[in-house]
Amino acid sequence: MKNPVIFDTDPGIDDAFSIHHALYHPEINLIGLTTVFGNVPVEIAAKNARILVEMAGQDIPVFKGAAGPLVAKHKGFPDFIHGADGFGDINLPDPKGSIEKTFAPQFIIDSVRKQPGEVTIIAVGPLTNLAMALRMDPGIAPLVKEVIIMGGTAKEYGNMSAVAEANIFNDPHAADIVFRADWPMVMAGLDVTHQVMLLRKDAEALAKTTPRIGGFLLNAADLYFRFYQGIFGIDGCYFHDPCATAYYVNPELFGTVAASVRVSCEGPAFGQTIIKPAGHPSPSTEWDGCRLHKICMQVDEKRVKEEVLGTIARYAD
Amino acid sequence: MKNPVIFDTDPGIDDAFSIHHALYHPEINLIGLTTVFGNVPVEIAAKNARILVEMAGQDIPVFKGAAGPLVAKHKGFPDFIHGADGFGDINLPDPKGSIEKTFAPQFIIDSVRKQPGEVTIIAVGPLTNLAMALRMDPGIAPLVKEVIIMGGTAKEYGNMSAVAEANIFNDPHAADIVFRADWPMVMAGLDVTHQVMLLRKDAEALAKTTPRIGGFLLNAADLYFRFYQGIFGIDGCYFHDPCATAYYVNPELFGTVAASVRVSCEGPAFGQTIIKPAGHPSPSTEWDGCRLHKICMQVDEKRVKEEVLGTIARYAD
Repeated sequence: MKNPVIFDTDPGIDDAFSIHHALYHPEINLIGLTTVFGNVPVEIAAKNARILVEMAGQDIPVFKGAAGPLVAKHKGFPDFIHGADGFGDINLPDPKGSIEKTFAPQFIIDSVRKQPGEVTIIAVGPLTNLAMALRMDPGIAPLVKEVIIMGGTAKEYGNMSAVAEANIFNDPHAADIVFRADWPMVMAGLDVTHQVMLLRKDAEALAKTTPRIGGFLLNAADLYFRFYQGIFGIDGCYFHDPCATAYYVNPELFGTVAASVRVSCEGPAFGQTIIKPAGHPSPSTEWDGCRLHKICMQVDEKRVKEEVLGTIARYAD
Repeated sequence: MKNPVIFDTDPGIDDAFSIHHALYHPEINLIGLTTVFGNVPVEIAAKNARILVEMAGQDIPVFKGAAGPLVAKHKGFPDFIHGADGFGDINLPDPKGSIEKTFAPQFIIDSVRKQPGEVTIIAVGPLTNLAMALRMDPGIAPLVKEVIIMGGTAKEYGNMSAVAEANIFNDPHAADIVFRADWPMVMAGLDVTHQVMLLRKDAEALAKTTPRIGGFLLNAADLYFRFYQGIFGIDGCYFHDPCATAYYVNPELFGTVAASVRVSCEGPAFGQTIIKPAGHPSPSTEWDGCRLHKICMQVDEKRVKEEVLGTIARYAD
């Protein structure tokens, strides 16, 4: 049996590519999707996760988690990027199945306790569910195999401020709890996701190969592509969340540095992931007791796209 | 008459190289040295500035400024780097002349008001004097020709924390005031100063050419070299402050980017200079109203060293 994976998400368009990658990949043993506010309100995130599961003809349970940040004031939803429905306003019908009754952080705790040392958590939204799980049961941290997140930035400029990436900006206090916990993390942040660009023609090619799944993804991504066209003049979008699932199945596509991470929760640095590389000499005690994580700094763009799009093309009907 | 220059400083060993560069350079019209706490207490900084002026056979006035940070708690003096006397504990005799009675920020204000548009301020310590001058007379900012600082860091890791450079860390509130003021600034921070390494053999060569001034500098730098040897295994030191005077006389030795700057005053980002490059798209309003400054990112190490050491070698007896 392959190692169990929990996917924590706020779908979201790039989430949809990443979730389909996970749903269809034969090496990813998805045991549940936990959902969180972020790109959309948590009710829509849960509904969308269920829609994607059913779209792939599967019955993986979906859990609803945090509706807002732990401490910070919520700054609103980016409906101009993901649409009010999270899928570019394409009016999909409701899912047939329902959302589980268990609170998402409780499902994380139960799964980790049931299979200590086995569970990987892939988290591509604000880290509120993971932080709540740690506060509800602090003992789980060393029992988690690995936490792979899409979020943050080390050296690349941010997308919510000069230094803050959106998932961390949405709940910096939660992110600081998660980075300080005693579990091994991989941070796939803007340093790598800004190097992986999904072009409209890539999505069009996928839609030709798999008209149902690829067609949905192309349709959903249209608003996202147009947002990027307006800001960057590129008919495409950063392929943020799929970098996390690509790392899970193929970590050698990424170059990493070992570093401790703290998150700023105040002032102009609000939402910044502050990277202290292993061995960096400084008198500061702010990173004391923080273990080293893997910070992705290089990525093989071509092979990440092949991995994600190729998997969906190969296995989706 | 060449444009007037005020040199704000906390000597300090690398300050001493930079001050002698300024004192001996025929193109630098130094009208006063203003001193601030930082590497040493302000009383020692003022005394040391006066010692350096007299050592060069000049009579430029020296002013005493801020004894501690505006708001933050002072974290202590780095006597393990600069010595308790600021010159590596070499027990120099007191200067003959005395320190001016005028408070350093008042001298800055008076000089700028007297020659509007003409005065350049080179500041290589904590920015407390400059912030106080702005609070005492906010109208001076647009009347200053340029402010060139050694301090901060954009992408390079910090030396007081993962993200904070020592001068900014010593008074982040003052630095935030200074970066937000309406005067054109040049930031020569760790991004460039960590690319310029003074080796012991460079100082030894200078001491051979100019035994009195070069000999003093070599002698003063010994403790500094040994500090770096212990941490980095290099018999030399970063040539921080001289980068600021080198920029003044030869800006083409540096590559710059245009950016607004804010300074974090809280949490793990305390003392970080947060760079928002021109045109960077983000919804944050933290940089609103901040003008663009020049952030040094590239430097010609060889020519900076030649500029500073060559000037002292050429003009010092």
